[in-house]
Amino acid sequence: MAGNSYGTLYRVTTFGESHGEALGGIIDGCPSGIELDFEAIEVEMSRRKPGQSAIVTQRKEPDAVQFLSGIFEGKTTGTPIGFIIPNTNQKSDDYSHIKDNYRPSHADYVYDQKYGFRDYRGGGRSSARETASRVVAGAIAKQMLPEIKINAYVSSVGPIHLDTPYQDLDFSKIESNPVRCPDEKSAAIMEEYIRDIRKQGDTVGGVVSCVIQNVPVGLGEPVFDKLHAELGKAMLSINAVKGFEYGSGFSGSEMKGSEHNDLYNSDGSTKTNLSGGIQGGISNGMDIYFRVAFKPVATIMQTQDSLDNKGNITPMTGKGRHDPCVVPRAVPIVEAMAAIVLADFYLINKTY
Amino acid sequence: MAGNSYGTLYRVTTFGESHGEALGGIIDGCPSGIELDFEAIEVEMSRRKPGQSAIVTQRKEPDAVQFLSGIFEGKTTGTPIGFIIPNTNQKSDDYSHIKDNYRPSHADYVYDQKYGFRDYRGGGRSSARETASRVVAGAIAKQMLPEIKINAYVSSVGPIHLDTPYQDLDFSKIESNPVRCPDEKSAAIMEEYIRDIRKQGDTVGGVVSCVIQNVPVGLGEPVFDKLHAELGKAMLSINAVKGFEYGSGFSGSEMKGSEHNDLYNSDGSTKTNLSGGIQGGISNGMDIYFRVAFKPVATIMQTQDSLDNKGNITPMTGKGRHDPCVVPRAVPIVEAMAAIVLADFYLINKTY
Amino acid sequence: MAGNSYGTLYRVTTFGESHGEALGGIIDGCPSGIELDFEAIEVEMSRRKPGQSAIVTQRKEPDAVQFLSGIFEGKTTGTPIGFIIPNTNQKSDDYSHIKDNYRPSHADYVYDQKYGFRDYRGGGRSSARETASRVVAGAIAKQMLPEIKINAYVSSVGPIHLDTPYQDLDFSKIESNPVRCPDEKSAAIMEEYIRDIRKQGDTVGGVVSCVIQNVPVGLGEPVFDKLHAELGKAMLSINAVKGFEYGSGFSGSEMKGSEHNDLYNSDGSTKTNLSGGIQGGISNGMDIYFRVAFKPVATIMQTQDSLDNKGNITPMTGKGRHDPCVVPRAVPIVEAMAAIVLADFYLINKTY
Amino acid sequence: MAGNSYGTLYRVTTFGESHGEALGGIIDGCPSGIELDFEAIEVEMSRRKPGQSAIVTQRKEPDAVQFLSGIFEGKTTGTPIGFIIPNTNQKSDDYSHIKDNYRPSHADYVYDQKYGFRDYRGGGRSSARETASRVVAGAIAKQMLPEIKINAYVSSVGPIHLDTPYQDLDFSKIESNPVRCPDEKSAAIMEEYIRDIRKQGDTVGGVVSCVIQNVPVGLGEPVFDKLHAELGKAMLSINAVKGFEYGSGFSGSEMKGSEHNDLYNSDGSTKTNLSGGIQGGISNGMDIYFRVAFKPVATIMQTQDSLDNKGNITPMTGKGRHDPCVVPRAVPIVEAMAAIVLADFYLINKTY
Repeated sequence: MAGNSYGTLYRVTTFGESHGEALGGIIDGCPSGIELDFEAIEVEMSRRKPGQSAIVTQRKEPDAVQFLSGIFEGKTTGTPIGFIIPNTNQKSDDYSHIKDNYRPSHADYVYDQKYGFRDYRGGGRSSARETASRVVAGAIAKQMLPEIKINAYVSSVGPIHLDTPYQDLDFSKIESNPVRCPDEKSAAIMEEYIRDIRKQGDTVGGVVSCVIQNVPVGLGEPVFDKLHAELGKAMLSINAVKGFEYGSGFSGSEMKGSEHNDLYNSDGSTKTNLSGGIQGGISNGMDIYFRVAFKPVATIMQTQDSLDNKGNITPMTGKGRHDPCVVPRAVPIVEAMAAIVLADFYLINKTY
Repeated sequence: MAGNSYGTLYRVTTFGESHGEALGGIIDGCPSGIELDFEAIEVEMSRRKPGQSAIVTQRKEPDAVQFLSGIFEGKTTGTPIGFIIPNTNQKSDDYSHIKDNYRPSHADYVYDQKYGFRDYRGGGRSSARETASRVVAGAIAKQMLPEIKINAYVSSVGPIHLDTPYQDLDFSKIESNPVRCPDEKSAAIMEEYIRDIRKQGDTVGGVVSCVIQNVPVGLGEPVFDKLHAELGKAMLSINAVKGFEYGSGFSGSEMKGSEHNDLYNSDGSTKTNLSGGIQGGISNGMDIYFRVAFKPVATIMQTQDSLDNKGNITPMTGKGRHDPCVVPRAVPIVEAMAAIVLADFYLINKTY
Repeated sequence: MAGNSYGTLYRVTTFGESHGEALGGIIDGCPSGIELDFEAIEVEMSRRKPGQSAIVTQRKEPDAVQFLSGIFEGKTTGTPIGFIIPNTNQKSDDYSHIKDNYRPSHADYVYDQKYGFRDYRGGGRSSARETASRVVAGAIAKQMLPEIKINAYVSSVGPIHLDTPYQDLDFSKIESNPVRCPDEKSAAIMEEYIRDIRKQGDTVGGVVSCVIQNVPVGLGEPVFDKLHAELGKAMLSINAVKGFEYGSGFSGSEMKGSEHNDLYNSDGSTKTNLSGGIQGGISNGMDIYFRVAFKPVATIMQTQDSLDNKGNITPMTGKGRHDPCVVPRAVPIVEAMAAIVLADFYLINKTY
Repeated sequence: MAGNSYGTLYRVTTFGESHGEALGGIIDGCPSGIELDFEAIEVEMSRRKPGQSAIVTQRKEPDAVQFLSGIFEGKTTGTPIGFIIPNTNQKSDDYSHIKDNYRPSHADYVYDQKYGFRDYRGGGRSSARETASRVVAGAIAKQMLPEIKINAYVSSVGPIHLDTPYQDLDFSKIESNPVRCPDEKSAAIMEEYIRDIRKQGDTVGGVVSCVIQNVPVGLGEPVFDKLHAELGKAMLSINAVKGFEYGSGFSGSEMKGSEHNDLYNSDGSTKTNLSGGIQGGISNGMDIYFRVAFKPVATIMQTQDSLDNKGNITPMTGKGRHDPCVVPRAVPIVEAMAAIVLADFYLINKTY
């Protein structure tokens, strides 16, 4: 397996299966002398953590991160930061039902085809538990770029959409409800909807929106490594993501140039921002904003046909804790990946 | 500037400004012994070429590619393939009006901020002319993977959408009209719309859809380098792209798990394909399909305010050839980038 | 800090300071289905371990490796192998004497200049303790390539040289003495010499020779990533290494072409092997052999002047355990790095 | 074939066979705003050029470099610099004698084994002609680092050694004789020796020494990418190189720590410099110096047995121009690779 690293100069490499000894990773390239706020890292971890509210999975994952290197007397030394997140429940569940079975819309089948052998417990490496390491790396990236503000929030759950422009939202309300939707009215409807889905033993998808403010002009490399191309890859690499759009996005494809162009103010800022803060792959100093679409979690508490490794179709009912809607817990992961991408481009931009 | 390479094992590096001596690139990692079909490469180049029909830009770019290495007696040798595409018109245009001016929604401003110095003629490195090198590399990648079929087409132009599922389209009709829309009725309406836009001196965006068939199971690396994450990055790295979705895409975020899961047939194929041919970042053998949103070209033949490098707002009218709708010419570029991504993962997958 | 990874497809990333919580690393790219021999890994670790004999440092480093991922039911799964080696003695030593002092020929000064802040305890990241992680990754690389035989040995200690050609040595005797020299007579003289050096409170350098047999034809990439160029980099990246030569080496520079050329046998093997098993950067199936020069360890038990961070010269006497000669313990590290380089090229070669 | 790129941030990718249309390359990462001295680039090219004196090969290679991008109004723009060096003599020679024959100590055999198909004319990609592209990239790297002085020179030819320490040499005399040895007496003896070798139709190896002065403290990454490890790889990647040593080198392995340690002056400089300007992989501000061993060129004008691709041993006499001693022309290549390595670490170091 290749592809367990992200970034060039702020480089994150992760390891770990859902039910192995531990998850963890190495952050290579974090500059020296940053006084780390460990509590802030814990806060990010707890935003991703299962069991944080009644509308997410009730799995138990303590997610306590242990830093093993790269930090001395509370400050980064510039050497690689190694960390682990022990798995405490790795023996508690029974996964024999999926040992020889491929669950629909899970990675079981392709892993077996590609590798010939897999750790089937809890999805192994394909488990979304892998994103815990991303949150650690993202939390440190945020501290590397204290001036930049990254705010993600849930803007839709299934058919329920929050269409208010982000400028009219109060980001301080994001954490005020378990859905992580800053509009309280919408949040209540979404929460109700998720409770209903949970009762049905079903799951539902949603959309996470993200706004990045105070980005300096110049981040991003203008050909293959455009800032939005890397943001897109980073988001699409999160489990269950099906789409990414930034600025005007898909709706921009319906517009005319005379409507879409962002005219300048004399200070280089623009009167409108359909560009989404990025021109030619490079940040222009305006707000960056994008949307990330998540499909519904594949494990449902209803009976569905699965395939076994002898080619038989067999009915299977989801076991384990039910995760009716993935998007509230995806919010900190979206922010983490955005922070990692920005940290990397920030370092690259220092070489000019 | 970093980021002028794409891929790990099938690695494409490009160079070249719109109005410099030449564009070109190096393809490193193409296996030896492939008998190249140079005519097929020319066909791809002519699909991207300006002036190919009345509804695209009438700029003159001969786009004749010259191969300089890596090919002997018509076959690849496994050594890097160097190629150039001379610019024949580099002195013909007058770009003095943009020397000190930043055109709205162009990269002029951010280039000046980031690099302090730029080749302003025709957008320099930020010009979409850079994509000619991608088409060369993609055409060779296609020949490396003869069994895989990649078909892109225009599925919307501005407000006009073709909503027919791809299974009901006849891909052999894509090249039968200048819009590259396989549905002839929609194509005619789209063409009419573009002609109207051109008369207004305006531009319009659109969507390119792409379908990849006969992909073996196993392409893609399951964490950061998921197949769809790389496809997304590759597409978002094309000029003017604002969004990417695959399989069920954004509409999948509105669905329930019980609707969205793809149930298996006994041969490992699935009854539905909302997953879009990819599970856990790895191809599962089903058709891969995705959609790419393009914004309207920023250069319009109407007068708009621009910013000069002294902070003055000045009206400017677009000069040069008018490109009313970018998507017909984007079709071969989408296919080329898809081919490059697949070639790279195909080689990585051989290491298991 | 960048540069904590080695390899492209068999990719090793390490972390850890001498006196932090733990060392460790991630091996990304190890193929699935390899039944690991954990005892063989332990053997390699114990060959590197301090305190293994009277002529090496008596520091206590238990070096027990814990695997955290990538292995299931004793076999590799193809996912990244994360591992840690806890530091058990991180609080036992007193390093206050080097907190503000730069020891001669140590990295203290350059770390402070480059990073502005460092973990001064035991050399921090610049400690040779970092090589423990390399030995883990090398031991697994060896198991990936069971047919290839890698034998390193000590061929000189200070002024005492073993000049016997490797063909006349019995590699099974390497582990029969604490010097790791397969010629018992030379080994005894070297051991005596090291004991004498130890009594003087001094240290001495030496040379490790390495022979790699049963290498398939074709490993290595012929321009910048020549097989011997990567072997050279890998060896030079080991602490205290000052030189690398392969095949005829420096003495080959004194020869004529008519003497140096290796004439073919009809099966493609060669009658002589001054080329050292590599032609044009690619293995040719003959034995690969090379020599690695190590300088004496900088920490001596004599008093020498050091520099403090205020610019004062102050006498300092080495504290801690004395490592009179580094080369016996360097033998498994040389083998480990050779195995990592070969594993990487082996995977790259599978893509053709 | 992989491995046609060198460097991370100052990244050079090359292409081209000896007898194809052209050689060339792309330099990605050169900062913007550098006013290029094209004459200085030409000077470097002419130092590498065949036919420059009576003691090197008389092949005709005009080696005129054409820059195609990345330069505007004489200054770098920060975008990739593409360049080509046309091959003007690609049809003039007859290479049918090596089409099916493997010359001893050439790469013919391993290329055929690895790739199954090769451009046999003049060695194809394995030809030292490939180094012309390195000289271009190195010449620009030198201009990027105007304060750093890189001086390479020939310190031995076959059995004739110049043992004078570099501090006692006058580098301004390097170009005063065709051998590129700054000691005129030694140069005369070396030249006489090479003339004699040429008459015999034979070839001879030699050593190039290199001294780098005015290097800032801090270049190099301290674990796998140590400054001397990259310098070693860069040198070993040059055709015909068999060994690399820096600072005290192999002779340092015979020394005691009490002799080898470099004691500090109060300004951080050291009284001696056996370390060769590098501590723990990082430049310490002292002179960097190293030696590179070259084997004799394999093509000799005497008759030697070769192998054909049917397994027959057949006598063969070298054709083409005779290159009796490679080292005078290797001097600018050594400097070029050193400059590329330094440019890359210089940019990496800016990210701290």
